[in-house]
Amino acid sequence: MNPDQVLKAFAAGELTLEQAKSRLLGQSIVDAGCAQLDMHREMRAGGPEVVYCEGKTPEQVAAIFTEIHNHSGRVLGTRARPEHLEGLPEALGASLDETSGLLRVGPDPEPRGKVVVLSAGTSDLGVAEEAAGTARFLGSGVERRYDCGVAGIQRLFSAMDAVRDASAIVVVAGMEGALPSVVGGMAAPPIVAVPTSVGYGANFQGLAALLAMLNSCAPGIGVVNIDNGFGAGFLAHKINMQAVDRD
Amino acid sequence: MNPDQVLKAFAAGELTLEQAKSRLLGQSIVDAGCAQLDMHREMRAGGPEVVYCEGKTPEQVAAIFTEIHNHSGRVLGTRARPEHLEGLPEALGASLDETSGLLRVGPDPEPRGKVVVLSAGTSDLGVAEEAAGTARFLGSGVERRYDCGVAGIQRLFSAMDAVRDASAIVVVAGMEGALPSVVGGMAAPPIVAVPTSVGYGANFQGLAALLAMLNSCAPGIGVVNIDNGFGAGFLAHKINMQAVDRD
Amino acid sequence: MNPDQVLKAFAAGELTLEQAKSRLLGQSIVDAGCAQLDMHREMRAGGPEVVYCEGKTPEQVAAIFTEIHNHSGRVLGTRARPEHLEGLPEALGASLDETSGLLRVGPDPEPRGKVVVLSAGTSDLGVAEEAAGTARFLGSGVERRYDCGVAGIQRLFSAMDAVRDASAIVVVAGMEGALPSVVGGMAAPPIVAVPTSVGYGANFQGLAALLAMLNSCAPGIGVVNIDNGFGAGFLAHKINMQAVDRD
Amino acid sequence: MNPDQVLKAFAAGELTLEQAKSRLLGQSIVDAGCAQLDMHREMRAGGPEVVYCEGKTPEQVAAIFTEIHNHSGRVLGTRARPEHLEGLPEALGASLDETSGLLRVGPDPEPRGKVVVLSAGTSDLGVAEEAAGTARFLGSGVERRYDCGVAGIQRLFSAMDAVRDASAIVVVAGMEGALPSVVGGMAAPPIVAVPTSVGYGANFQGLAALLAMLNSCAPGIGVVNIDNGFGAGFLAHKINMQAVDRD
Amino acid sequence: MNPDQVLKAFAAGELTLEQAKSRLLGQSIVDAGCAQLDMHREMRAGGPEVVYCEGKTPEQVAAIFTEIHNHSGRVLGTRARPEHLEGLPEALGASLDETSGLLRVGPDPEPRGKVVVLSAGTSDLGVAEEAAGTARFLGSGVERRYDCGVAGIQRLFSAMDAVRDASAIVVVAGMEGALPSVVGGMAAPPIVAVPTSVGYGANFQGLAALLAMLNSCAPGIGVVNIDNGFGAGFLAHKINMQAVDRD
Amino acid sequence: MNPDQVLKAFAAGELTLEQAKSRLLGQSIVDAGCAQLDMHREMRAGGPEVVYCEGKTPEQVAAIFTEIHNHSGRVLGTRARPEHLEGLPEALGASLDETSGLLRVGPDPEPRGKVVVLSAGTSDLGVAEEAAGTARFLGSGVERRYDCGVAGIQRLFSAMDAVRDASAIVVVAGMEGALPSVVGGMAAPPIVAVPTSVGYGANFQGLAALLAMLNSCAPGIGVVNIDNGFGAGFLAHKINMQAVDRD
Amino acid sequence: MNPDQVLKAFAAGELTLEQAKSRLLGQSIVDAGCAQLDMHREMRAGGPEVVYCEGKTPEQVAAIFTEIHNHSGRVLGTRARPEHLEGLPEALGASLDETSGLLRVGPDPEPRGKVVVLSAGTSDLGVAEEAAGTARFLGSGVERRYDCGVAGIQRLFSAMDAVRDASAIVVVAGMEGALPSVVGGMAAPPIVAVPTSVGYGANFQGLAALLAMLNSCAPGIGVVNIDNGFGAGFLAHKINMQAVDRD
Amino acid sequence: MNPDQVLKAFAAGELTLEQAKSRLLGQSIVDAGCAQLDMHREMRAGGPEVVYCEGKTPEQVAAIFTEIHNHSGRVLGTRARPEHLEGLPEALGASLDETSGLLRVGPDPEPRGKVVVLSAGTSDLGVAEEAAGTARFLGSGVERRYDCGVAGIQRLFSAMDAVRDASAIVVVAGMEGALPSVVGGMAAPPIVAVPTSVGYGANFQGLAALLAMLNSCAPGIGVVNIDNGFGAGFLAHKINMQAVDRD
Repeated sequence: MNPDQVLKAFAAGELTLEQAKSRLLGQSIVDAGCAQLDMHREMRAGGPEVVYCEGKTPEQVAAIFTEIHNHSGRVLGTRARPEHLEGLPEALGASLDETSGLLRVGPDPEPRGKVVVLSAGTSDLGVAEEAAGTARFLGSGVERRYDCGVAGIQRLFSAMDAVRDASAIVVVAGMEGALPSVVGGMAAPPIVAVPTSVGYGANFQGLAALLAMLNSCAPGIGVVNIDNGFGAGFLAHKINMQAVDRD
Repeated sequence: MNPDQVLKAFAAGELTLEQAKSRLLGQSIVDAGCAQLDMHREMRAGGPEVVYCEGKTPEQVAAIFTEIHNHSGRVLGTRARPEHLEGLPEALGASLDETSGLLRVGPDPEPRGKVVVLSAGTSDLGVAEEAAGTARFLGSGVERRYDCGVAGIQRLFSAMDAVRDASAIVVVAGMEGALPSVVGGMAAPPIVAVPTSVGYGANFQGLAALLAMLNSCAPGIGVVNIDNGFGAGFLAHKINMQAVDRD
Repeated sequence: MNPDQVLKAFAAGELTLEQAKSRLLGQSIVDAGCAQLDMHREMRAGGPEVVYCEGKTPEQVAAIFTEIHNHSGRVLGTRARPEHLEGLPEALGASLDETSGLLRVGPDPEPRGKVVVLSAGTSDLGVAEEAAGTARFLGSGVERRYDCGVAGIQRLFSAMDAVRDASAIVVVAGMEGALPSVVGGMAAPPIVAVPTSVGYGANFQGLAALLAMLNSCAPGIGVVNIDNGFGAGFLAHKINMQAVDRD
Repeated sequence: MNPDQVLKAFAAGELTLEQAKSRLLGQSIVDAGCAQLDMHREMRAGGPEVVYCEGKTPEQVAAIFTEIHNHSGRVLGTRARPEHLEGLPEALGASLDETSGLLRVGPDPEPRGKVVVLSAGTSDLGVAEEAAGTARFLGSGVERRYDCGVAGIQRLFSAMDAVRDASAIVVVAGMEGALPSVVGGMAAPPIVAVPTSVGYGANFQGLAALLAMLNSCAPGIGVVNIDNGFGAGFLAHKINMQAVDRD
Repeated sequence: MNPDQVLKAFAAGELTLEQAKSRLLGQSIVDAGCAQLDMHREMRAGGPEVVYCEGKTPEQVAAIFTEIHNHSGRVLGTRARPEHLEGLPEALGASLDETSGLLRVGPDPEPRGKVVVLSAGTSDLGVAEEAAGTARFLGSGVERRYDCGVAGIQRLFSAMDAVRDASAIVVVAGMEGALPSVVGGMAAPPIVAVPTSVGYGANFQGLAALLAMLNSCAPGIGVVNIDNGFGAGFLAHKINMQAVDRD
Repeated sequence: MNPDQVLKAFAAGELTLEQAKSRLLGQSIVDAGCAQLDMHREMRAGGPEVVYCEGKTPEQVAAIFTEIHNHSGRVLGTRARPEHLEGLPEALGASLDETSGLLRVGPDPEPRGKVVVLSAGTSDLGVAEEAAGTARFLGSGVERRYDCGVAGIQRLFSAMDAVRDASAIVVVAGMEGALPSVVGGMAAPPIVAVPTSVGYGANFQGLAALLAMLNSCAPGIGVVNIDNGFGAGFLAHKINMQAVDRD
Repeated sequence: MNPDQVLKAFAAGELTLEQAKSRLLGQSIVDAGCAQLDMHREMRAGGPEVVYCEGKTPEQVAAIFTEIHNHSGRVLGTRARPEHLEGLPEALGASLDETSGLLRVGPDPEPRGKVVVLSAGTSDLGVAEEAAGTARFLGSGVERRYDCGVAGIQRLFSAMDAVRDASAIVVVAGMEGALPSVVGGMAAPPIVAVPTSVGYGANFQGLAALLAMLNSCAPGIGVVNIDNGFGAGFLAHKINMQAVDRD
Repeated sequence: MNPDQVLKAFAAGELTLEQAKSRLLGQSIVDAGCAQLDMHREMRAGGPEVVYCEGKTPEQVAAIFTEIHNHSGRVLGTRARPEHLEGLPEALGASLDETSGLLRVGPDPEPRGKVVVLSAGTSDLGVAEEAAGTARFLGSGVERRYDCGVAGIQRLFSAMDAVRDASAIVVVAGMEGALPSVVGGMAAPPIVAVPTSVGYGANFQGLAALLAMLNSCAPGIGVVNIDNGFGAGFLAHKINMQAVDRD
């Protein structure tokens, strides 16, 4: 439906005011350049919103959470700290996972489909949990495999078994960031790679891993920002929905 | 099936030598750090292989193409130049698309599902075509929308109409790389963003667009290397297969 | 009037010593390479001076403020902290805005003309306020629109309404810094773009937004340093004066 | 007028279809992320469009020029080379200025107001001419002062005389990029600073000048991309129009 | 022994299940992209493991140390802090060297062969000690020469005497990182160069020294990451083992 | 022997003038900061010298080759081009390997010990050959394994078989540079990693591979400059000599 | 005197052991790559030594100071903090200047010749004082002019008067670092330029000023590291000694 | 003489118009930000001017050379190519040194004092000759020592002998740029260090050498831009004049 058609349909009473605005304006423009996420209409009607808490005061976070909660009953905050939790009205029943920095209000939906989150080192745990928690909050089924690098080959192989029927794999890695290339050679599902800032010296706070992932000779890998577990979980969920929604 | 089980099954004669090796070793390790793509076994049996032609002599390309062609009948080369085409045996029936640098042998498979490739400027055409041609070669249905920025708002809106039932969107943009953020705010499917090196000065050969895409405030975007149309088309195809394979 | 003419006019008694020096020497050379601002003579006579407080002790700030205040009655400090306020003589009647870090002495002049300051996210608030406060202190009328990204499309549209009769727009954005491109496509007045350091990872403390703004495909955008709300407000005020002074 | 009002006014027949679309959609979104410029509606109706020629084939340039020419009679191309000129239909009567890379079709409008373009070295000439030619094409009066650094102090002083009644100054400088700081200390009008890639070694193709200009201690300076004479001329013209339009 | 042979030997009962898995799978894949070190089988059987403590909680470190200790009796931790020591069960008898950040459990083996660790300045001491302690823990004989730059030429010359029969030299240097070039011109054994982050300004946290070492005109130098004393000691030990194992 | 002892021994006639100078002065100082290699005395007496040909005219190369040849009968040039070969006196009997850019005069010595050079892609061939040719010229036995990434797992495994009794492994890789990490997990000998500039976009001419190798989580890896096959071959030879010289 | 001559002269008894060593070995090699300064023999005999205190414990500083003091009676420490002063034996009579971080033991020598230290902003004071204090400690006469940018043109002109008979000028500047270019156009003596890390955003901790100074179009400028007041004072002193020593 | 005094003296007829302008305005401002050099008045009256030829057409160079030649009889051009020479009027009697890119008109003055130019490699020859030729053109005596790294220790030692009575040393080095540190430890005169772009890979076109020189632990070193032999020769000449002018 192009704008001409929308306008005519509205004038003809075939679309409500809200429908016309939605068709014409989408949610797009306001998002560009913004720090807050303003997700799609489908989600907003009774769905979740996500709040980026870093750089916001507890008062700001509380106000935004309350407003969203009134709308939809469910809210997710990222990069939250304990003071953000403490600043929330108790009535929201919020909980903070300190490992991932995820601040949750409302129950998780039924899990659908399957996203696997892989990481190797203990140091990458926070980012991996942010990815896993985000995808789960949004409605995906999530399976975590964080021990690929530690206890021997069996675990990597069983992780490979686990991904075979996944719709998307999130691979979290710091230092030289080679894990997505290795997994990309072994597994068929689309991969979302998350470089982490784990490392030192010529790692340059995750730049080494970021460049490695962007230059991976294994195709089928999309990269998100350094330490951006949220973005990875969100994208993996979207990919997963492609499979689920066709069911 | 874990390694213990594979080994026991082989010893018990339940698996052939080849089956056991394949289960145990996969194709993964050899890919890491390589310039050539060595796709998954499922594909190799009768499926396509992709050859990165840049930095290879026409003789090397001809040898690899011939070998793969004998295997599977279909081959795709990326970043190929006319001398690569000329170096191929005529019997292969190869064709080179100079805009995208794609060098093809064999017929395209039936299109399944839908990938949309969006770009704005004429200068980004080569990268967009590399993405579109790759996804099509691998078996996805592809719809191109390259005129989003040129002829007025109607085209962007009709492009948005086009993406609504797509499984994946490839967005190609140079300069400040803002287009994925704008599209990400308007469209629900997963987005694969490709920064191009179009620009000058503080663009730093695509770095500006790359950083913008990695920092997009619109979630649901996976980024590939600068000018990596191939990687984007490959990932979009993989995402598209999630939807198709569930059908 | 060239130097020969100035010297001869002085020798002929047509210019005072001060007038001759001012014509010959301007205020320019001493400014280059300096941390303190030494504004134009026109302003200094009864006009404001601006003090960059970061890296100065409260004692240094107090001394400079007192001296300027004796001259002109009005002073503006940027990047000030509470200890700078506490170090000032109470008689100055100074006030500190902690959000913007602006430290003010003396009344704001009558507002003339119109500068609009746009930002999207709560996290960019401090920089936006520094721009708005600076332009207002210098004498421009200022309208703030900080909610473009939050509450839905209506607000961006009404913001667009607001800019139509503005002389200059300051656009403040972090992360991928796409907002100036979007606004630049919708609004006619000159735009002063301010990248902020809001973001993480491959944002590199505002580098991503800075590069995006420098590479914007929307022309008519001048960029200032990362987080330099003061510089943006100052430039927007200067542009605004072009319109006002012709009235 | 907010979207609700626009839609209702359209339904009530108070706005035409075109008026409603224009109010609702503006020209903005399609520009973001684009290589081609798509200027404001006011300009497009009978006004100029600008085409970025680098990376386009002569055929592409010819097609775009012809289309725009049919619309408005005037076209400007930037970063054009002789082959672009040769590819144009002779009937357009185009002319190419090889110093600036500007490719013009149609007569210049009457000059209004005044923009001064300053540069020092012979090596920066191309960028300075791109700025001057752009502002002039768009309708500003332009005065060039390219000899500030060469023949002695008198020229800089007379240049300062020349800027006193200008609405905007474009300052073009390579190497260490100090000229905008010096001019910023001497002259009141808003300054648009253009770093050039003139230099070598630790100049890093204009990065040194770019950083210097962004960090200038003289406020009132907006910076454009390295070698972006077009953008500087465009912004200076927009600032100049603030003064002119109030006349 | 290739995979075919391994599989057949296993089926024939000539290899145990564990032997077959080990031959086929090695320890390689799981290491790539990991933060934890998982050393070679030869070492693991009764040999040491090394734990990267930075970014791990004392609880995580305690769990890993205990597990490894049960296996092999000896453990080495790098980049450990006092709280990591305090978190360990007393029964392990661990000791922390605060200069190097090395956390040790178990006795050092008999020293074999000779590694020399050279550094100049007091500020590089921690990195040099990390290298020396690592090589010693792994079983190499280690000789420290940290005073090359302080007390006069005699010490450098006697240091040169000391390296003559060494199998490997570790050279630790910050600032301009010239020491490996100088030593490389004087001494025959292979050199492992470690840039340190000692310096300021255009040192960029060790980048200056890193680049200098990578560009050394003295060949025979392998470089490790900035401040990576552990990696240098490990590599020097491996080189030393080449000499020792042939004895 | 410290300087005092050398001087006294010379005064006592126990050392010749040449011996004393050699002990006192070494060959070191003159090397630092130089483009030409001036190897150790032991080698110079009848041994090889290596000439860096890039940036030298054929005349300069001819003069240096002739001089060294008169001394020692053997010379190696790196980064040579056909014009360098053509400029040499025919009597030298020089040969140029165009793949590696190595220019050789004189026979290769008997091979001793074993260095393995691994690479994956055809594009890295030149750098790998430079490493292999250098080590061989200096006297090491060399085994090449360039097909690790191409033809399936068997080849990587047999490559692993090949390295088991090597003294040093050179691993050459471009793009994301993950191969050294993978090999480092599978093989015990010391590894010399060579990043290559093969790649594009965010590869930044080999920076991605360089950073990955410096940040490898597999210890026992020393890194040389991007594309520095010569340096890698030289270092691997030195390591190999540790094993050989103890025989 | 070449090495042959030195050795023969020593053997002939014409040089003492110490004289021969000094001639042969100098103090050079030990300095390269070191953090401590080991100045020339002429200075060491009764002359000053300089200790870089950053990264050293108070105990280390105390030990080095005591040793040097015993030698020469005078010591200078740079980048010292109060705890370094407190750690020194009271008998040394040390004094710390907190602005510059200089820690002094012993009386200043008679001033000879003249070095001028120029800076503009209050924020650069510490670096300027480090330069001035160092040159003075080493024996140069020093004149400070720190108010160039603050109080009007008269001061810069009188500063220019002051530099006319100076042997060297140290110019300290942060932000865009333009001051050395301006002074370089006005004053004849050699200039030592010191970029400071004063600034923010795209200043990148002094990188902007460093690049500007390296690219200055005014010749006759030597640049030292960011914030390296010590190095600037030392070099200015050396230049000044050229004039003084010829007196 | 401050501006007040100058103006009054002019009004009183004690200064001519030219004298007053010269005192008041100097030659400074016009230089800042310029590509052309406009040296000091003392030189301009009968003295040399220097023209930066890169980026100028032969016509532009010819015009500038002719004008300066008419003034002073002597001209120096830097970074000139044969076409610049060919474009000059034959009557000027110009000569071009292709190694250094210096284009000379007029006789060299009598040499005074002594500047030593040191370099090691053949590849750095052009930059070293630019430094030497510049200093000689300006009037300094120049001694070249380009063989420090090639033929053995004697040459470096005799080079050290040569510098003992020099007033300034120019040290030219590429790759890791360590030579200034080494020379700085052995020689007392002030050092002007010139990094060259000789190298590859992580040399980043001279960045490695530049950073090394800026971070040198040997004090008394001033650094100029990469490949800036002219600037080094100019500064060394200025330092040399300090000594000479006192004679």
